[in-house]
Amino acid sequence: MINLVILGAGNVATHLAKAFSNAENITLKQVYNHRPESLIPFKSFVTTTTDINQLEKADIYLIALKDDVISEVAGLLKDNAALILHTSGSVPLKTLERFENHGVFYPVQTFSKKKEVNFREIPISLEANSAKNLEVLKELAEKISNNIYEIDSEQRKALHLAAVYVNNFTNHLYSLGAEICNKNEIPFDILKPLMRETVDKLESLTPREAQTGPALRNDKQTISRHLAMLEPKRQELYKTLTQSIQEFYGKEL
Amino acid sequence: MINLVILGAGNVATHLAKAFSNAENITLKQVYNHRPESLIPFKSFVTTTTDINQLEKADIYLIALKDDVISEVAGLLKDNAALILHTSGSVPLKTLERFENHGVFYPVQTFSKKKEVNFREIPISLEANSAKNLEVLKELAEKISNNIYEIDSEQRKALHLAAVYVNNFTNHLYSLGAEICNKNEIPFDILKPLMRETVDKLESLTPREAQTGPALRNDKQTISRHLAMLEPKRQELYKTLTQSIQEFYGKEL
Repeated sequence: MINLVILGAGNVATHLAKAFSNAENITLKQVYNHRPESLIPFKSFVTTTTDINQLEKADIYLIALKDDVISEVAGLLKDNAALILHTSGSVPLKTLERFENHGVFYPVQTFSKKKEVNFREIPISLEANSAKNLEVLKELAEKISNNIYEIDSEQRKALHLAAVYVNNFTNHLYSLGAEICNKNEIPFDILKPLMRETVDKLESLTPREAQTGPALRNDKQTISRHLAMLEPKRQELYKTLTQSIQEFYGKEL
Repeated sequence: MINLVILGAGNVATHLAKAFSNAENITLKQVYNHRPESLIPFKSFVTTTTDINQLEKADIYLIALKDDVISEVAGLLKDNAALILHTSGSVPLKTLERFENHGVFYPVQTFSKKKEVNFREIPISLEANSAKNLEVLKELAEKISNNIYEIDSEQRKALHLAAVYVNNFTNHLYSLGAEICNKNEIPFDILKPLMRETVDKLESLTPREAQTGPALRNDKQTISRHLAMLEPKRQELYKTLTQSIQEFYGKEL
């Protein structure tokens, strides 16, 4: 039986608390957050506290807080025998090095409080300061997910960068697609099956193999027609993306 | 009963022929293509021809060929009473105006021959030269899809541009994410649930609401760290996307 305390009440903490409270051989003992109103949704299934000096004794303290307060909140923890973890994609392991036992438990997913997730499918990237602690981390992760990866701090930095491309930047392209639809009174829903298929294709093809479109074909007529349809402030990104595709495939511009 | 002939043997023609050959109250009479080897996969379920002068008599001729040959092949059709359609997102309706009855039947999806699709979920964008022909087009589209949209040529041009953003450009971002993973020995699969969720989130949020990440937060430290991890040739696109996000939300750069 693993006794667990979660620090944080945001999107990641919410989904982790739900997943761990339903997991076998885990006791989620407590959720801590300094703002009492953030703890209200947790009260139905777990003990909560706003006082970091009143934390329950546990085997693992999981810090699911914003990157810039992880170090500060970790500094307030007094249990030096426990395993101390954070859940951040971009904070290095060594931020927790003052603890004898420390690690990273990073779920590679975007969370919204309102949207249910199936944690079993969410990849969890793990790192620890010792082989022994890594084993504990794996045991913990396996309680809620079937997708466990061992990733060191350097790799995690790269993974976080790659996630910016496939999530943040991609979402911005969706925004620009939706903007074009709105201006032309086209329902954005018409594009959603295409957006899903763009991801689903990568089950059988690499993205390099899956690329299509006017940039790859160097179809100058279509590219010019598209640029003419865009406001000047949107043209630069269209051009830069087109050039990046052509450079990626070693094409002449 | 609608009698149909399809001209073309590419990805779109392949999936349309399969869908129509299984549809009720449609007779797919023939598939035409000038290259006999391209017709081989069709022979098990439909009559084929490589001779455009040997086309069967039909109510509808559906031209699912590359954009730049639609006009030429349409010029060889002799049945002036039939309804002549093309399937292109970027070719205007008036390309077929020499025919008394003409229209556009554009499935808004990316197709690979190998990958099965559920046509019922694929949006089909329709346009016709008359209200009467639009009714025939709707009747045809309803045989294979539940997602039918009436879209004029100007809107279809815009829709095709939006599709470039959410399919071609997005796929390129996946390529760049995969490149980062490969260089750092991270399996690209770790990002796929995140990629799917980025699309799925838009069932309940607009992309404008769903945006997250260092560009939106104007987290200069993370942006600098990311730029330092990228090769110079990748930095420009990262910067242009970051600026575009900040401009989209009216943020100071």
